[in-house]
Amino acid sequence: MESATLSQIGLAGLAVMGQNLALNIAEKGFPISVYNRTTSKVDETLDRAHREGQLPLTGHYNPKDFVLSLQKPRSVIILVKAGAPVDQTIAALSAYMEPGDTIIDGGNEWYENTERRMVDASANGLLYLGMGVSGGEDGARYGPSLMPGGSHRAYLNIHNILDKVAAQVDDGPCVTYIGEGGSGNFVKMVHNGIEYGDMQLISEAYDVLKNVGGLGNDELAEIFGEWNRGELESFLIEITSDIFKVEDHESGKGHLVDKILDKTGMKGTGKWTVQQAAELSIAAPTIAASLDSRYMSGLKEEREAASKIFSKEGLTEEINNVGGVDKKKLVDDVRQALYASKICSYAQGMNLLRAKSLEKGWGLNLGELARIWKGGCIIRAVFLDRIKQAYQRNPGLANLLVDPEFAREMVQRQAAWRRVVGLAIQKGVSVPGMSASLQYFDTYRRGRLPANLVQAQRDYFGAHTYERVDRPGAYHTEWSKLARKARV
Amino acid sequence: MESATLSQIGLAGLAVMGQNLALNIAEKGFPISVYNRTTSKVDETLDRAHREGQLPLTGHYNPKDFVLSLQKPRSVIILVKAGAPVDQTIAALSAYMEPGDTIIDGGNEWYENTERRMVDASANGLLYLGMGVSGGEDGARYGPSLMPGGSHRAYLNIHNILDKVAAQVDDGPCVTYIGEGGSGNFVKMVHNGIEYGDMQLISEAYDVLKNVGGLGNDELAEIFGEWNRGELESFLIEITSDIFKVEDHESGKGHLVDKILDKTGMKGTGKWTVQQAAELSIAAPTIAASLDSRYMSGLKEEREAASKIFSKEGLTEEINNVGGVDKKKLVDDVRQALYASKICSYAQGMNLLRAKSLEKGWGLNLGELARIWKGGCIIRAVFLDRIKQAYQRNPGLANLLVDPEFAREMVQRQAAWRRVVGLAIQKGVSVPGMSASLQYFDTYRRGRLPANLVQAQRDYFGAHTYERVDRPGAYHTEWSKLARKARV
Repeated sequence: MESATLSQIGLAGLAVMGQNLALNIAEKGFPISVYNRTTSKVDETLDRAHREGQLPLTGHYNPKDFVLSLQKPRSVIILVKAGAPVDQTIAALSAYMEPGDTIIDGGNEWYENTERRMVDASANGLLYLGMGVSGGEDGARYGPSLMPGGSHRAYLNIHNILDKVAAQVDDGPCVTYIGEGGSGNFVKMVHNGIEYGDMQLISEAYDVLKNVGGLGNDELAEIFGEWNRGELESFLIEITSDIFKVEDHESGKGHLVDKILDKTGMKGTGKWTVQQAAELSIAAPTIAASLDSRYMSGLKEEREAASKIFSKEGLTEEINNVGGVDKKKLVDDVRQALYASKICSYAQGMNLLRAKSLEKGWGLNLGELARIWKGGCIIRAVFLDRIKQAYQRNPGLANLLVDPEFAREMVQRQAAWRRVVGLAIQKGVSVPGMSASLQYFDTYRRGRLPANLVQAQRDYFGAHTYERVDRPGAYHTEWSKLARKARV
Repeated sequence: MESATLSQIGLAGLAVMGQNLALNIAEKGFPISVYNRTTSKVDETLDRAHREGQLPLTGHYNPKDFVLSLQKPRSVIILVKAGAPVDQTIAALSAYMEPGDTIIDGGNEWYENTERRMVDASANGLLYLGMGVSGGEDGARYGPSLMPGGSHRAYLNIHNILDKVAAQVDDGPCVTYIGEGGSGNFVKMVHNGIEYGDMQLISEAYDVLKNVGGLGNDELAEIFGEWNRGELESFLIEITSDIFKVEDHESGKGHLVDKILDKTGMKGTGKWTVQQAAELSIAAPTIAASLDSRYMSGLKEEREAASKIFSKEGLTEEINNVGGVDKKKLVDDVRQALYASKICSYAQGMNLLRAKSLEKGWGLNLGELARIWKGGCIIRAVFLDRIKQAYQRNPGLANLLVDPEFAREMVQRQAAWRRVVGLAIQKGVSVPGMSASLQYFDTYRRGRLPANLVQAQRDYFGAHTYERVDRPGAYHTEWSKLARKARV
């Protein structure tokens, strides 16, 4: 093939995300080669490229032709299922790649797998990027948020493409070089953990408005629409409003949302986020609550059985001995509770990122991460710009909650937040996410916690020693002896 | 050495736990050899054996003499720091051990390390046990709870010793063969996770009584003493009562508990418990909250700074716009809240054990595990007998909460529990553990959760599909299209 006909970039793995990202790249004017092991997907993509505007996309039916169709140094994005399929795809392609070429894994990969592959790739002179891609199908097609980490040289080779392909917001494209190693995957993982938290908090707001406030789907559609014009403006609030509008065409009666089984699926990233938080000694209770809620949603049969058992004992699913509720006030309170809870969840995610960055020496720029999440991705939201500003004001900010602006907002909203969680508890409507956020807030803002007792207990039974508030040093006390003396 | 002078068992690693366990074994009439790399510890132990009743304990100053001083098949307990020291000790000792001999690791080891060592040991014909030992110093000396897992043959070689050495309760010694592989370590790990939960919940009860109820240390000592004569009767409640009695001899003023810095240390087992819960899709929010609280207790300087920042914004550490509190009623409510919260925490731990047992084919007997925790260990408590009975009634019990007796107790206590958590939230006194338990309860007992909305969101942005409540199959909806239509 002559150099003139070579593509600027390649993409292997043509499931929905891969197809859409390839079409996006082609549409931005970058000739692209695509390949998929199951070749019908190649034809499907070629077909779409033709239909969606004669885009500069060429299809290849074997790894060799695919790789050789690319300009050097070659850059190949792979978008296949995380784990073994990535290794297989790399093996198939790298046989034809040359020193200086780059592999870019765009999947939701565990960051350590990426770091292992980086080492393997560099043994063959290949460069490597682990790139988080968020935004679902539509994001991939029209502008995702991109989180590339790994070889900076590899990033420079393609950054002109990424800049165009990514979602565009007021302060630039939603892409930045994240850092070395598996940082791109790690940041995407935490993004997903935050996404879990957002979805859980929204579902709790829905639950309280529906089961405490008695609101119907039409009202909910309107309220979420209204919220989407204020401080909560975000993709997830927007689609939530949409969801309440959709009628059930299957049964022809009522709204579709009411017909959906309350069992939630999940992938690995939420789990990893929680495990990494524990590993790094970072409290991330809101994200953990969202994961737990997904687990417990899966126990549908157990929950139905439990509901019957407790009803028989006199505890019905909703406890009705609660006074009348002022709908308008409740809606306003829930909005504030949702916002305050959300800030706590982001504070947790950001602190997890910083802790990992310190451990790995990645030098993550938290403000810049908030910026590239402003568009393209699932958690895109107006308030991410405020998070960006908070970290710009103070890159060493210990916690989002103590940024002066957020601190003020939290204080303004805390009374409403306490009312919502308190009311939900009275009514027996579970709000694990909002409640975890509130406990996080109330723990973090207290100079004095009852941990002195825990430490005394540890010293009592395990001689673990303790520190004192009034003088330095480690102390151990013979508690049981002294307590016996005190008794007499 | 003649056979008559050989010891029945050996113990290597003579820090506090090792010394005490060795003396316990000797006191029960089993001649024991001890060894430690730092030989002064050997002399120290010999000295104690002499002073504490001329116990049949012999000291050795090198691995060879130590191993050769044991009857065949030899059984050697090692009690050194988890991780590399265990490997080093095994290497030093196994050089002199013979096929059929057994190594018993009594440390808080990660169960997979034990499984790896089992494989290595069996290559040399050695048997292996990973044995959880709980009870702190006193337990080790006078009767711990023992959780041996691994080679059943190795267990049979020493079970007569373990039966005598363990704590004794009404229905037998606090030891049983746990299961194969690393099950002994895993069960001990979850035991520790539950212990974290118990300690956190007690510290929250203290916090509420002190900061909402205004109770002083003398009152607290009395109340915990009283609680220790009822349904909450347990080692941790007992020592908590003791702790409030101890005066501060260092400063000569007030109670010692008030002088202890509110920063809590921790070891690895709590973290592993939380990570394993995530791995196995088991919600364990109370245990996770106890871990998070320890992390946040460590951020003392950050918390003090946050406290000042929020005070300036008008949110003082304790919110005082709450009505007067009826002390007596509060104490009674907190007792019920603590009990109900505790049951949820144990339900989480037990379900984690079952999930792992299923994954690994360990065949754990949950009722029997509750039984061996009735004495010796840190979480020993009267109510563990009730847990034992619940699993005896129904070994397939899906969750402790739906055992008929526990279900009734939960219902009886739920109103008080809601009052306590609600009041704490109003006052800004954080109760992450009680609140996590209550949310767990309210989530588990609900037949219908708002997870339908989460699933709709996932289908909206990621085409993840959903199930319906009224008919089988997986469905996908073009939400945004239909919502647009609904708008017009």
